[in-house]
Amino acid sequence: MRIGILNSGGDCPGLNAVIYGVVGAAAKLGWEVIGFRDGFEGLLPPGDYIMLEPEKMAGILKQGGTILGTTNKGHFAAKVGEGNVAEIPQDIIEKAKATLKLLEIRALIVVGGDGSLTTGMQLMRNGLPVVGVPKTIDNDLAATAMTFGFDSAVSTVVDALDRLHTTADSHKRVMVVEVMGRNAGWIALWGGIAGGAHVILIPEIEFNFENVANAIRQREAQGLHSTMIVVAEGAHLPGGDAVTKEKSASSEHRLGGIGDYVAAKVAEMTGKETRSCTLGHLQRGGSPTALDRLLGARFGVKAVKLIEEAKYGHMVSYQAYHVDSVPIEEAVSACRLVEPDSEVVQTARAVGISFGDK
Amino acid sequence: MRIGILNSGGDCPGLNAVIYGVVGAAAKLGWEVIGFRDGFEGLLPPGDYIMLEPEKMAGILKQGGTILGTTNKGHFAAKVGEGNVAEIPQDIIEKAKATLKLLEIRALIVVGGDGSLTTGMQLMRNGLPVVGVPKTIDNDLAATAMTFGFDSAVSTVVDALDRLHTTADSHKRVMVVEVMGRNAGWIALWGGIAGGAHVILIPEIEFNFENVANAIRQREAQGLHSTMIVVAEGAHLPGGDAVTKEKSASSEHRLGGIGDYVAAKVAEMTGKETRSCTLGHLQRGGSPTALDRLLGARFGVKAVKLIEEAKYGHMVSYQAYHVDSVPIEEAVSACRLVEPDSEVVQTARAVGISFGDK
Amino acid sequence: MRIGILNSGGDCPGLNAVIYGVVGAAAKLGWEVIGFRDGFEGLLPPGDYIMLEPEKMAGILKQGGTILGTTNKGHFAAKVGEGNVAEIPQDIIEKAKATLKLLEIRALIVVGGDGSLTTGMQLMRNGLPVVGVPKTIDNDLAATAMTFGFDSAVSTVVDALDRLHTTADSHKRVMVVEVMGRNAGWIALWGGIAGGAHVILIPEIEFNFENVANAIRQREAQGLHSTMIVVAEGAHLPGGDAVTKEKSASSEHRLGGIGDYVAAKVAEMTGKETRSCTLGHLQRGGSPTALDRLLGARFGVKAVKLIEEAKYGHMVSYQAYHVDSVPIEEAVSACRLVEPDSEVVQTARAVGISFGDK
Amino acid sequence: MRIGILNSGGDCPGLNAVIYGVVGAAAKLGWEVIGFRDGFEGLLPPGDYIMLEPEKMAGILKQGGTILGTTNKGHFAAKVGEGNVAEIPQDIIEKAKATLKLLEIRALIVVGGDGSLTTGMQLMRNGLPVVGVPKTIDNDLAATAMTFGFDSAVSTVVDALDRLHTTADSHKRVMVVEVMGRNAGWIALWGGIAGGAHVILIPEIEFNFENVANAIRQREAQGLHSTMIVVAEGAHLPGGDAVTKEKSASSEHRLGGIGDYVAAKVAEMTGKETRSCTLGHLQRGGSPTALDRLLGARFGVKAVKLIEEAKYGHMVSYQAYHVDSVPIEEAVSACRLVEPDSEVVQTARAVGISFGDK
Repeated sequence: MRIGILNSGGDCPGLNAVIYGVVGAAAKLGWEVIGFRDGFEGLLPPGDYIMLEPEKMAGILKQGGTILGTTNKGHFAAKVGEGNVAEIPQDIIEKAKATLKLLEIRALIVVGGDGSLTTGMQLMRNGLPVVGVPKTIDNDLAATAMTFGFDSAVSTVVDALDRLHTTADSHKRVMVVEVMGRNAGWIALWGGIAGGAHVILIPEIEFNFENVANAIRQREAQGLHSTMIVVAEGAHLPGGDAVTKEKSASSEHRLGGIGDYVAAKVAEMTGKETRSCTLGHLQRGGSPTALDRLLGARFGVKAVKLIEEAKYGHMVSYQAYHVDSVPIEEAVSACRLVEPDSEVVQTARAVGISFGDK
Repeated sequence: MRIGILNSGGDCPGLNAVIYGVVGAAAKLGWEVIGFRDGFEGLLPPGDYIMLEPEKMAGILKQGGTILGTTNKGHFAAKVGEGNVAEIPQDIIEKAKATLKLLEIRALIVVGGDGSLTTGMQLMRNGLPVVGVPKTIDNDLAATAMTFGFDSAVSTVVDALDRLHTTADSHKRVMVVEVMGRNAGWIALWGGIAGGAHVILIPEIEFNFENVANAIRQREAQGLHSTMIVVAEGAHLPGGDAVTKEKSASSEHRLGGIGDYVAAKVAEMTGKETRSCTLGHLQRGGSPTALDRLLGARFGVKAVKLIEEAKYGHMVSYQAYHVDSVPIEEAVSACRLVEPDSEVVQTARAVGISFGDK
Repeated sequence: MRIGILNSGGDCPGLNAVIYGVVGAAAKLGWEVIGFRDGFEGLLPPGDYIMLEPEKMAGILKQGGTILGTTNKGHFAAKVGEGNVAEIPQDIIEKAKATLKLLEIRALIVVGGDGSLTTGMQLMRNGLPVVGVPKTIDNDLAATAMTFGFDSAVSTVVDALDRLHTTADSHKRVMVVEVMGRNAGWIALWGGIAGGAHVILIPEIEFNFENVANAIRQREAQGLHSTMIVVAEGAHLPGGDAVTKEKSASSEHRLGGIGDYVAAKVAEMTGKETRSCTLGHLQRGGSPTALDRLLGARFGVKAVKLIEEAKYGHMVSYQAYHVDSVPIEEAVSACRLVEPDSEVVQTARAVGISFGDK
Repeated sequence: MRIGILNSGGDCPGLNAVIYGVVGAAAKLGWEVIGFRDGFEGLLPPGDYIMLEPEKMAGILKQGGTILGTTNKGHFAAKVGEGNVAEIPQDIIEKAKATLKLLEIRALIVVGGDGSLTTGMQLMRNGLPVVGVPKTIDNDLAATAMTFGFDSAVSTVVDALDRLHTTADSHKRVMVVEVMGRNAGWIALWGGIAGGAHVILIPEIEFNFENVANAIRQREAQGLHSTMIVVAEGAHLPGGDAVTKEKSASSEHRLGGIGDYVAAKVAEMTGKETRSCTLGHLQRGGSPTALDRLLGARFGVKAVKLIEEAKYGHMVSYQAYHVDSVPIEEAVSACRLVEPDSEVVQTARAVGISFGDK
């Protein structure tokens, strides 16, 4: 018995922990595991892969990145159309099938986000048994309570905030920290609260600059001369105008991303010295946290179990206190956003954090 | 309106985050917060306390320990008898009441473990409105899915395992790491899996040394010459014989705690060079992880909300995805142990980790 | 006996360790220490300062930033003219003298860079006993072998490279990391070697893009598909043309700083996917490394000793294996640059690192 | 041209950085490098070794331990007799020679401490060209100003002190931290100052318990209720009586090492609650600091240069600001101890740290 695994889409701390879990669990069952390189690309004939031997898995648990490589481009870059129908040409699918058949792969574990899992389902409809492991560093998949990588990204944000607090205090500055989160503000929200931010701007809660400036002014009035602002990439102004839109209108302020923009605006409105910092790829790299290693390993073990039970088309899912599975088709259709009235948002407000919305 | 807060029992990363949450949330409501020093001791006349001013809370979020001090000794050292009746003398209770009355404290937030919360209930039965925040670094309270401090302790264990792996590999040694967990093996289980341990010994799963030695021998046979063993303080041998019992019988091997004992036994049985390391207080100290800071802050905010809603006698509780509350009386009676057949234990077994039970 | 201390110029990890050293050493001598806030600004009447009490210094050793605040602006923003004559108006000097006289300060410790120490010397020529502690995170002061803050900045760079390596490998990318170093490339050189960079671009070694592209192509040919480039802010092209000049000429590529520019150029020339990351203020913040804490404490203790010995006009200096002092006038005139043929540069070349110069 | 390298003796962070430096520098010269496993043991026929290919060295720079393995036992366990004559039997030497000849190794790089380098010299006297790289985590070799691994060990101590400070403060305890240093107190001294210790006990400065108790009592009198004591393994009482001697006399107090003993004594004398923590192997493990990676890489590169220049019998040495070499024979004979009146000790005293000697 031989199974395959591939990682697809953006890098995420904990991917190697999933591989560790898969290989360990498969070895217990006497199965072999083949790891395909660079996402689905590794499926193209003659196949780009390595045998994942259990004795060699020691040490990968704590490594960031993925020993298999990944890509969010290439021949399998699925455009998710209506009804989640991925538009991968049939000849590419046939080639992948051929490779898997040649290598006698009985089932394929796809570790990836929405797009990659949808591609996985297309393979499945073409006769390839597939199980999914959700990968979303933004933690915005509705079908799972938590995914690996998120805690590591939040920790990176908190570590950066710890560093920037001291320099903001020393210089009485406003610091704007741009973090990941195009659709959902989880990283900004969790990282911002834990990192002692004073203003958090996320896609789910519309903000305006007057409220942000007021939050800073109120702090000044209390003798607190530094302010820490965390802004998610996808934060936007009210009335449906995305910040990106206004940005183009005021391109003289534009040096880089939204962080730079917010910093410039805030400096203009408050007269404070501001600095911005974009964490970018630092959030995706590095050794995973303890939690993400555990979560990744659990997901990997569960994926093997799904194959053992022939629950194809299912995706591993973290259900409250235990790892379970859900049908992939249902899973990929729903994004989990921060609810503006949820307990964590209320927590942030309760400790005096502004979301710029009032 | 003025409320009080105290920390009682052993140190735990995230205590300051709870204080941060309480003071922030109280400030939003216009309430004052008084922090009592050194646990319940601070309640003794004339009261040992500080005013917790919101402007000064910046920076405590990331500090380990507690700015209020704590103790697990003193006049309020409750012995939990049958039915959870704490045996604190009535005159001590009266003195605490007098202090709280003098300071016009309307409600008291007790952050503590089983014993401390039981003491809190005794105060409550004597007319003092009390709400509880659960503190158990071992994460073994059945009434809450997770408590702050646990993730930090697990991270410390994983960090230590990362360090010891390299030196174990270089010298082909067996390393035994003793971690906290007298009744419950959560820290050993989570930390062990995430830290790449090969054998995990916990109170909930009886082990014997022959199985442990076999796990090491099997690794040797695969060319894996180092083995990492994580043992919880309370791990014990089958048949009801606690390791501590056998230890006294073989005191010549006894240099320190159970970690040293396991190391000596394993060396004797396998002929391998072994070393042991007891993490001890390192697990309680240090800056809390991002997760623990967030959890602590959420717990603090919720405690203030419980007072606002007059839900006295309730304890903050992490219910799946949100922070909620449960009656303290129910909460303190139930310990949450690792279930030997639970998904996380199965995960550990699936990746080849031995619990020494087979 | 009472002495004063102030921090001036940019933030730097270890400033609090200097204060810790100064206050500890002064206490041993029975002296009081007054800390002026926000650099020289705190000297303006009526004086903005705090008493630095020895009992309260516990804990500052590990804090980043400075508890005194700092500024690199304000009334004392010395423009270092020819001959290092700082052009601070005489009335400002008189005001500072008045404050120091009123507070009965016998000597002032100035912790700062070239400009701040020059200002200190101007105060000294006006009758105020001054001793200096060098502060340059870039480590480019010729008069001292090492300064605090540098090791912390290098560590931040190495930590970032560790994170980015994994994600670069997973995606087969070129990563460009922009680090501090306007005149001298020490941070880039040390951080780059220790962080496993493949190309290091510094002001002291002129580079051209063809060489950089070739280094990447050679790696590709060896099957190494990711490349890590560290570029100091002040790196420049040969022929005296600063990169900043060419940048304006090719502004279509300009998204941000030199890191973005190098990334764009490299992408164009090699066809590789590139990403850039600017570490910015992350390098100045955060808890100092063990080395920087020790160095800061040693510098602080030595500064007090200089006062005890009335060696005014002297600056603390790290001379090979021990901390000593040198005359400030001599010290501020000389910048320490990386010597293109020095042993560390040779080390980098020896392990295959390209400087883009050949 | 082919050279060999081996690591011998105790594990040390930065060993892989040396290998990285050696392999990189050799590749530049077109040389092959063979790495022998498990110290000198790998030299026994038929030879236990791996080819160290440059393309595979990425990533080892940051790994703790050594990819080659090491041992401080085995056939080559040299007993250094008078005049540094290592007593390795001639037949073992002949076997090693045979392996090296068979593999066409032109020169051997020995990375090790006093004993290992002496063994290296014995090989050299038997006709094998050897160069040395000093490895002493205790940093006590007189012939080099600094060695890799030391900064990492100091950082581990400082990290532990940071953690224990918070819990000591919360509980008003005395914490005793036992660190490495049998002959020399460098780790205790540097780690203790940087970690904010109040008492440091090292072999070079005789202490007595009355002075230690007084230091604690004085802190109590100032309202400072926690005290942090760092004790090196080899610390001893005055009059030539090693602590180990008194320990046997008072074995009722003996639970473990000297840390436990000091804790028990201090508790007895001051009535304070004390806890002890032995850092042990944590100090040898883990990812090396930025400084140690750089130092290791520089040492490795220099070792190759020594071979290139045929400076056999020489050892790499860190001379003030650059890496140089010294004859091994001279190097192994001199231990570098903390000078009781040196500037760093004076720094410690100046900030109020007690060495228990007065």
